[in-house]
Amino acid sequence: MMRLDSRDADFAAAFAGLLSVKREISEDVDETVRGIIAGVVSGGDAALVDYTRRFDRLGEDFSATSLRVTPDEVRAAIAACPADALDALRLAATRIEAFHRGQVPGDHMATDEIGVTSGWRWTALESVGLYVPGGTASYPSSVLMNAIPARVAGVPRVVMVVPMPEGQMNPLVLAAADLAGVSEIYRVGGAQAVAALAYGTETIAPVAKIVGPGNAWVAAAKRRVFGQVGIDMIAGPSEVLILADGHANPDWVAADLLAQAEHDVAAQSILITDSSELADAVESAVERALATLPRADIARASWRDYGAIVRVRDFDEAVPLVDRLAPEHLEIETADPEALAAKVRNAGAIFLGSHTPEAIGDYVGGPNHVLPTARSARFSSGLGVLDFMKRTTILRCDPAALRALGPAAIALGRSEGLDGHARSVAIRLNL
Amino acid sequence: MMRLDSRDADFAAAFAGLLSVKREISEDVDETVRGIIAGVVSGGDAALVDYTRRFDRLGEDFSATSLRVTPDEVRAAIAACPADALDALRLAATRIEAFHRGQVPGDHMATDEIGVTSGWRWTALESVGLYVPGGTASYPSSVLMNAIPARVAGVPRVVMVVPMPEGQMNPLVLAAADLAGVSEIYRVGGAQAVAALAYGTETIAPVAKIVGPGNAWVAAAKRRVFGQVGIDMIAGPSEVLILADGHANPDWVAADLLAQAEHDVAAQSILITDSSELADAVESAVERALATLPRADIARASWRDYGAIVRVRDFDEAVPLVDRLAPEHLEIETADPEALAAKVRNAGAIFLGSHTPEAIGDYVGGPNHVLPTARSARFSSGLGVLDFMKRTTILRCDPAALRALGPAAIALGRSEGLDGHARSVAIRLNL
Repeated sequence: MMRLDSRDADFAAAFAGLLSVKREISEDVDETVRGIIAGVVSGGDAALVDYTRRFDRLGEDFSATSLRVTPDEVRAAIAACPADALDALRLAATRIEAFHRGQVPGDHMATDEIGVTSGWRWTALESVGLYVPGGTASYPSSVLMNAIPARVAGVPRVVMVVPMPEGQMNPLVLAAADLAGVSEIYRVGGAQAVAALAYGTETIAPVAKIVGPGNAWVAAAKRRVFGQVGIDMIAGPSEVLILADGHANPDWVAADLLAQAEHDVAAQSILITDSSELADAVESAVERALATLPRADIARASWRDYGAIVRVRDFDEAVPLVDRLAPEHLEIETADPEALAAKVRNAGAIFLGSHTPEAIGDYVGGPNHVLPTARSARFSSGLGVLDFMKRTTILRCDPAALRALGPAAIALGRSEGLDGHARSVAIRLNL
Repeated sequence: MMRLDSRDADFAAAFAGLLSVKREISEDVDETVRGIIAGVVSGGDAALVDYTRRFDRLGEDFSATSLRVTPDEVRAAIAACPADALDALRLAATRIEAFHRGQVPGDHMATDEIGVTSGWRWTALESVGLYVPGGTASYPSSVLMNAIPARVAGVPRVVMVVPMPEGQMNPLVLAAADLAGVSEIYRVGGAQAVAALAYGTETIAPVAKIVGPGNAWVAAAKRRVFGQVGIDMIAGPSEVLILADGHANPDWVAADLLAQAEHDVAAQSILITDSSELADAVESAVERALATLPRADIARASWRDYGAIVRVRDFDEAVPLVDRLAPEHLEIETADPEALAAKVRNAGAIFLGSHTPEAIGDYVGGPNHVLPTARSARFSSGLGVLDFMKRTTILRCDPAALRALGPAAIALGRSEGLDGHARSVAIRLNL
């Protein structure tokens, strides 16, 4: 863990160092992934089954007819879920849906004074593929966060893929898919699943866009199929930045720093405070909390390698630091968190006040937990309904409007050396 | 040019062939581009000047102090523009700005029945880089289409780069930059300009996102700096799809097909009609119009290699074909174009009726002319104000709200094996 103080002479350099730390180990899997995609494109179901048998350690009885998860399997999974977790998932689904309904954009058409009608309309994508990781990173909450905005957008076909290594699956993931209105579920994963979604096989019809997190193979496959289909962002390790003053509870702050750190050894937790007392108290509280945390090995490595406590003179000094870090998650525990939040330009999601731990937002707050990482909140947004819709602009001129605008279009077409453009207008005006 | 008829036995295969035609020659410039980017990152201004001297054939007198275009140069350029083109640019800028003002999104905050306050706010990107090609593809209209939405979004710093090979520049491009409110202009291009925008040099401060069209080097550089900065779509060759019935004027339709074809030998113009008479008449009209078109060589090659006329039984049969083609531009010249447009899901921009040639939309209609190509209208939208803003979600729980939601978050955290998440909630509730 790094301690910085804005009063130190080398602070600018030290903070720049914090900004430029590389937290991702980029595995070079691109050649392997290229081969797998080509295999699925040429081999279809047979190739998909073959890769899945090999990578997910399945036997000869796994065949093309095993790919799709049946409604009976979904029902059985729901029956196998603990009641409290299922109730919690239902509450989460209801709140996520309510929040995202407010994001559905409106269409717009208007006719101006010269008779030009123009505007736009939003339409849902015709189909979306949702990648869900298997094993320990198989989070039912992420199924809700990815699938619900797609359904709210009006996507008629939401296809989920989830690997089930050795046949193992998390029943809560299937329950979440059912709650979120997923249309089809296939038990495949890795680059082979991404290839199947992008190009289609005999069993899996192709989709228009692929979303959802995955490992290095999945990320490389998504980059490679981009263009053939749309993709969401490529998510990096998770981050939290907490702004807290001397009134904050150090144990609560430490708990929030560790909730982030427990995700991944490459996660990053940063505290910026104007109080050296809080800084010291949080540093101790983190050590105390680590002593009993089940995922302490992961959290300790993250905190040691990428954690930071930054002391500033005041929070006005913190604002430009926040904008440069552009954190995925920003918690503000100061006297007037709204006022401070209003000064910040770059953050994926903001959590206000001491009773809004980021974990509430991970599950049941309502806003999406798929958020821009690695400083990309400078130029991008968290997942939402707009990611599952696209806008078509519409233009209509009546003859009088064309007469009014035509000469300018002709002049610009000619000035750009595009005489054919000018002619397509002129021919309608007998010019 | 390919003629298809939906009544033919091999139509499905022929149409699938039309869909899968590869129109882009992908030059493998990735290694060269990687070297240039690394050069600018390590060498700054000196490397940028060096590459610019070499690629734009400039002499020793071109130095770091020559990089920025001065206000005097901009004033001189405006004075050198033909008055009719300048007036047309002003009209275009006014209309583009008015259209895009309607796209500025609203913020939203609400408190629900259990005391959770949530919503989002939109903020403009802090800075944007606009790439403008030099030479024949240097279009002042594209400067307006890229820069005006950024200014409407509220981006405080809009930086334009435009190569000026052998010192040559198009005065209308500088005039358009001035009209659109560009803040800084640098006379650099290619991968070296993209690198300077992404990483910064002594003279050019880095930006948060890079937009605008470019050649293979520029496209490869944009792909490579993605993540460090945001980028817009990578545009492919332009396309038009025209739906026209037997009442359409074949000379007008032909003029519109050629206005697209004259862009590039890889451009694509397609007519779908229910009238074999119109199909024949348009085919003849294209040949007649080509005889006098200045860019006939380009347009003829595009029409020959990628043009198509598709005859359908009726326009209901055409709708799924349109959705599969997902054209950048869709013109509808039928009896009730609105009704037909309402059935289409996938198109970048729609032009309704026989008095709305696509060229009007290229210049002065108001909607943006930067649109998704190569079937990407299935999952993406044209350029707009939202491309220059990002959304931050906001969540605030009061103590009662945390008590209401906390148990569900704790249950989900534990079910996902993330005990630290559960603890960050439980510690605040003394659970």
